[in-house]
Amino acid sequence: MAADSPYTQRMPIRFTHTDPAGYVFFPRYFEMWQAAVEDWFTIGLGVPYAEMIAGGHGLPTARTECEFLKPSHLGEILEIAVLLARLGRSSLDVRFIGRVAGEERVRAKSVLVYIALETGRSVPIEPGLREKLEAYHRDHAVD
Amino acid sequence: MAADSPYTQRMPIRFTHTDPAGYVFFPRYFEMWQAAVEDWFTIGLGVPYAEMIAGGHGLPTARTECEFLKPSHLGEILEIAVLLARLGRSSLDVRFIGRVAGEERVRAKSVLVYIALETGRSVPIEPGLREKLEAYHRDHAVD
Amino acid sequence: MAADSPYTQRMPIRFTHTDPAGYVFFPRYFEMWQAAVEDWFTIGLGVPYAEMIAGGHGLPTARTECEFLKPSHLGEILEIAVLLARLGRSSLDVRFIGRVAGEERVRAKSVLVYIALETGRSVPIEPGLREKLEAYHRDHAVD
Amino acid sequence: MAADSPYTQRMPIRFTHTDPAGYVFFPRYFEMWQAAVEDWFTIGLGVPYAEMIAGGHGLPTARTECEFLKPSHLGEILEIAVLLARLGRSSLDVRFIGRVAGEERVRAKSVLVYIALETGRSVPIEPGLREKLEAYHRDHAVD
Repeated sequence: MAADSPYTQRMPIRFTHTDPAGYVFFPRYFEMWQAAVEDWFTIGLGVPYAEMIAGGHGLPTARTECEFLKPSHLGEILEIAVLLARLGRSSLDVRFIGRVAGEERVRAKSVLVYIALETGRSVPIEPGLREKLEAYHRDHAVD
Repeated sequence: MAADSPYTQRMPIRFTHTDPAGYVFFPRYFEMWQAAVEDWFTIGLGVPYAEMIAGGHGLPTARTECEFLKPSHLGEILEIAVLLARLGRSSLDVRFIGRVAGEERVRAKSVLVYIALETGRSVPIEPGLREKLEAYHRDHAVD
Repeated sequence: MAADSPYTQRMPIRFTHTDPAGYVFFPRYFEMWQAAVEDWFTIGLGVPYAEMIAGGHGLPTARTECEFLKPSHLGEILEIAVLLARLGRSSLDVRFIGRVAGEERVRAKSVLVYIALETGRSVPIEPGLREKLEAYHRDHAVD
Repeated sequence: MAADSPYTQRMPIRFTHTDPAGYVFFPRYFEMWQAAVEDWFTIGLGVPYAEMIAGGHGLPTARTECEFLKPSHLGEILEIAVLLARLGRSSLDVRFIGRVAGEERVRAKSVLVYIALETGRSVPIEPGLREKLEAYHRDHAVD
């Protein structure tokens, strides 16, 4: 039974992203991954990211790696697919694939940790969120 | 004869915008005005901003002022109306009004100057763009 | 009796500040004003900005205006003089003058409001801070 | 024969870096690596980064990975050591170690590629720059 497409964040490349060479300045991609996670949670999973924060939990990035395959420039639309490679007790491994008109431009993976904001320490992912992440993982696993 | 609503940019408030107080860090609003101008041109006027740049023209901000009326926070949707207060030979005065659920949060005005990128000097706005700006000005003037 | 020079923040223009035209992207200047205020407090006045925040007070910008006189570009050093134009009960009017090698490039003024972070409301500036601001105002007033 | 300390960039943690949790928002670290490279070139190696760009060469990041070991917060001073792990014909592997008061907070490695800006393609590192990088590599190699 075929799974749906993964959650995909549409990100117009703007002046604010680009550098004197006219291309996306690489730190901006990490802002885009963060935006993609926020909207994946809020829109894709139906778990509003801001409510998670207001409820005392955070999801900081513990590590990340990123390959910049081809530059992207002002006016292009980057489409960022969000994949869930691993779901742990209190962390998740997420993959991001950024494409422009189907051409891969950038790919990244990040480990996100579910924490209690008060202590800054990792805690088990709440059951309601876990259930939704499990369903997403089932449908959009990656090797 | 009723005019349409002005071009309005929908801007979700994200982690990348917010500061340790949980509110939008004020310099981020100016990135939003820039984004609003880019999409107003591209989507609202049908003059792709990136093509204008690629065609050798720019539209830098020569001066701006901004009042931060109420803070906005993570997860809110800021709706930014773009109004054209004045259309000169080579510059325009733009107003931005940012609202969340109808409540005004921030308002700004900026003078944008149409320049030739090669010289960095102001030049008369091109006829095709001017025509569209005139129509917009007619429909969305402000005092 | 002559006053000293005003507090001046040295700001190298970096890749992170510049846009596809090779010049400082205007929202970055507002990040610089904020940095200048932080270091003016911490270094210039001897009131560590981070301790003020940790102590429950904030100093958000309530309004600002800025004129971009000449563009600045990668590798230049912007020197930002901080002047105190007015000192109120719970707010201050600050002027920023940004120069490269003595040439004025940008000037701004901002109203900063002293608030209690818990309520988000303005409160009277604490006596210790007020005393230092009064001395600074005496020495570096502007018309 | 003992080598000197590696080039170290002092980076005060500012409002502009921090998120609603009060910690450095992780994409800001990548802006810091970029700033560290710029000043390492300009100050540490005596090869002004802006002149390299003006001379038609760039040094984009082709890949990067980063571990965020402990959060850093407003008012702390991050000291970023820059190490040169590998020097290739047209690329370099750089390590960044960020510490606050000697405690390691974040570590990263990046591959930087020397390119001709006109073509966007990698080219051999110029002899003058290569010589300085070789000397630095000799003195500040890492396993």
